[in-house]
Formats: sequence, C-alpha cells, structure tokens
Amino acid sequence: MNTLSQIKPKLTLVGAGPGSFDLITLRGLNALRSADVILFDALVEPDFLDHIKPEAIVHDVGKRKGANGKSQEDINVLILEMALKHGHVVRLKGGDPFVFGRGMEEWQHLAQFGIEVEYIPGVSSCISVPGLAGIPVTHRGSSESFWVITGTTRDGSLSPDVRLAAQTKATVVILMGVSKLSEIVEIFKANGHHDLPVAIIQNGSLPFSKCVVGTVKNIKDKTSKIGIESPAVIVLGSVVKQYSEKQILTSIEKNAVQLNGYE
Amino acid sequence: MNTLSQIKPKLTLVGAGPGSFDLITLRGLNALRSADVILFDALVEPDFLDHIKPEAIVHDVGKRKGANGKSQEDINVLILEMALKHGHVVRLKGGDPFVFGRGMEEWQHLAQFGIEVEYIPGVSSCISVPGLAGIPVTHRGSSESFWVITGTTRDGSLSPDVRLAAQTKATVVILMGVSKLSEIVEIFKANGHHDLPVAIIQNGSLPFSKCVVGTVKNIKDKTSKIGIESPAVIVLGSVVKQYSEKQILTSIEKNAVQLNGYE
Repeated sequence: MNTLSQIKPKLTLVGAGPGSFDLITLRGLNALRSADVILFDALVEPDFLDHIKPEAIVHDVGKRKGANGKSQEDINVLILEMALKHGHVVRLKGGDPFVFGRGMEEWQHLAQFGIEVEYIPGVSSCISVPGLAGIPVTHRGSSESFWVITGTTRDGSLSPDVRLAAQTKATVVILMGVSKLSEIVEIFKANGHHDLPVAIIQNGSLPFSKCVVGTVKNIKDKTSKIGIESPAVIVLGSVVKQYSEKQILTSIEKNAVQLNGYE
Repeated sequence: MNTLSQIKPKLTLVGAGPGSFDLITLRGLNALRSADVILFDALVEPDFLDHIKPEAIVHDVGKRKGANGKSQEDINVLILEMALKHGHVVRLKGGDPFVFGRGMEEWQHLAQFGIEVEYIPGVSSCISVPGLAGIPVTHRGSSESFWVITGTTRDGSLSPDVRLAAQTKATVVILMGVSKLSEIVEIFKANGHHDLPVAIIQNGSLPFSKCVVGTVKNIKDKTSKIGIESPAVIVLGSVVKQYSEKQILTSIEKNAVQLNGYE
C-alpha cells in the first residue's frame, strides 16, 4: 500500500483492442501490470485480470445499452479520485481510446488538475473486425479510402455523415449502428446503391463471432434470420467482395465465425 | 532445420503498429517468435530482430519512395517460395496490413495455392499517430466520423476522395500525402476552409517525431520552415483544436516531439 506522500497520480488511457486479450499491445500490457487501479469498459473481456497486480483495485464502469452504467461525468470524477488516492489509474477501453471512446474528455478532465496523462493506442475494431472476417478496409483498385462513422451520436440519432458517405466510393464502416440498420439501408438505397456489398460482423475477434454478408438490398432480411446483436461492425463497399468462404477458412477455424455467404 | 516432409507452409500477415516496437500486439509478437521467415517493410523498425528464432531468415522487402524496392508481384512470389521451402512466413507491415498495406493481395496470392493465411491486426498510424500527438480522431461535439485517405494512389496521384472529404465535417486523415500538401491545401481552400485546423506529424511513435500544427491557410509555410518528411500523417478537422502544448507534455517527454503551436 502506498502512503499518501509516495502517491504519484497518473492516468493511462489504454486501448484494449477488439476483444481477444492477445490483441492488446505490449505497451498496454506493461501499463496494466503497473496499474494501481483499473477502470474498464463494457467491451473489455475479463482476461486482463490475470495480468494485474494482486492488490490492484478494479472497477467496471461500462456503459451498456439500456443498462445504468456510470455517466461520463461520474467516470471523470472517479478517475480523478482514484488517481489522487491510489496513484496510477489505467483506463482500459475496447478498441482505441480515441475512436468514439471519449478518451480525450477523460484526458482533459485530468490535465486540468495537472495530472500526467498517457495515451496508449489500441487496435481499433473499425479496421480489425472487418479484417478478421477477411474483409480489408482498403484494397488496391477497389478502395482508396475508408470512412468510419458512429451509428449513435450524442443525441442517440444516426450521424448525418452517413448520408454524405453514401454518395462516395469510400469503404464505409459504421460502429454502434446495428439498431439503425433500416435507416442506413434506406440511405444507401436512396443513392441507388441497392447492389452495394455489405457485411455485418458481431464480436469480430471473439470465439462466438458472427458474420453476415449480402447487399444493401438483402442485408436486412439476412440479418434478421441470423440475429445479429450489438456490438457489431457494419461495412459497406466493394471491398466486401474480397470476402469469400475459401479465404475465411482460417478465421473460421480460429474464431468459429458463422458464415452466411455473399451473393 | 526442417526437413521437407515436416514443412507446413503458412503466411501470417502481422501489423507492426506505427513504429515503436512495443506497439505490436501480443498475438503479433507470438507469430514473430514462431516464424521461420520474416519479410518486413520500409516502415518497420529493426527491434523485432530481438524477438525471432536465431535461425529465422529475414528479408527487407521495403518499398521506399524513389528507391528500387521489390515490386508487389516479386514479393508475392517470394512469400510463396519461402512458405513452401521454409514453412511459416511472417509478413511484418507497418501499421495494419489492410490499411493501404496490400495485405489482401498477398493473402489472395497464397490462398490460390491452398496455403493457410492468418491476419493479425496492428495499431494503424491513421488513429495512433494523431493520438500520440494529443489529437483524437473523434471527439464528442466536434467529430462524429473520420475519413482515412491515401495521398498516393496506384498511379501516383492524390485520391479524388480528398475533394469529397473537403466538403464534409469528417476528420480527414491523409496517409502518404506529404508530397501532395500544396494540392491538398488548395482543395480545402476551394471549399472555403481557410481556417480549418491542420496537423502534420512525422514518425508519430518514434523518439525523433515532429508535429506541426496550423490552419489550411498557413500550414504550408509552417511545414517548409520545419521540414517535414515522409512518412507523415496529415490530419484536417476541428479535432486538431484539442491539441495543446499543455496536453502534449507527456508525449514530449516520451517521444521528444518538436512542438510548433496551433494558432
């Protein structure tokens, strides 16, 4: 136990990656090992518990849809309190802390009290979840860019950026958008993209992942049959054509992906 | 040394992250440790050599601008040959293999010969390099999306997606675009974005990184004074305002970032 005079408050924002523990970085693992307090999110798997100090304090502050997680303001206050009382706080977030992770809000809250903050990037699910399903977000001759959009903005609505994205040739990756699938599909139809390939991948790096592949026209029907739940990543664009059952074999064996072919 | 009958050809595409070795994932490190052959790219630091089998074969196949690296076709052939002769080939790529990394081309080349391929995602520089400089690609109330574009397409030109991106409110992240800075700036000016904040970050995760922050109007002058070279990441968008000299202090100490304030 630290005495008060030894305490050096610090916040480290750590990206845990897309789910599977071995997709954290070495730098992230080292931060976890030295943490006095770990505050983790809903999308973080509990395996990290094997890699922390036995006396470390662990709090689940995850905001789950419809469940009463802590507000961001409460989390900011908790981080500050924990850092002042116990020293090194690791804020472990699914994916990367700066991809819809509100990492900068926590950074700024602590920085205004003069507390040291470090950011350790993580493997973002926007790239890795499609990739683990055999879909590259970029592919020469097919996509020169990708646009990552949140399906759920501050007021709960779909980001208006989806409307603009439907007018471009970018690969469009939508996070936290499964509950808005009907709306998304209508936007792409309104832009004439009925046959644009679409994939929806649930729990992309975990053993119980699911992947549904189709087109703007049929993805809703296919998805309702399979029953995809949050968290899931939606990918729209010609890169989805790179997906094939043959290519995905490795991932199937590793992740037991449920396959539903692209037609 | 394997005998021919023991050889099990396999390709693992591994994302090395944005430069600093400790930003590789645990899964990536494990693949490196078991590799019989490592083929690495221009943007990969040599520290990985401390983590491979002593008898592993190592090839630098990096394509450096203006230098005569191997063509993609030659690399595909080399991977196949090495996998058949020696077994497990790790293809170590800067960032993530699917973000302008041509990973799927290598995957498909090997897959057509029935060779097992695995993808291990990496921390992409498109998110982590801005993040390590204190700039979040998304920030609540400031950016609901980010659009990642290559500055150098197949024919060497700037992607036309930049023109569309300049019409949106997305954070725009341009990789491999430093030599096109004049063109990029003109496109954003033509859309009336003279005062849009811009940051250019060279070698984002390494000790000799540089960061120049300004606006569309003045970034060219500022950059010529400092002398930014490839590889560098260009970020355009209001999230660049989150950057401040105070916030960046941790990164300065860690990475010796050269600071050039946002005005």
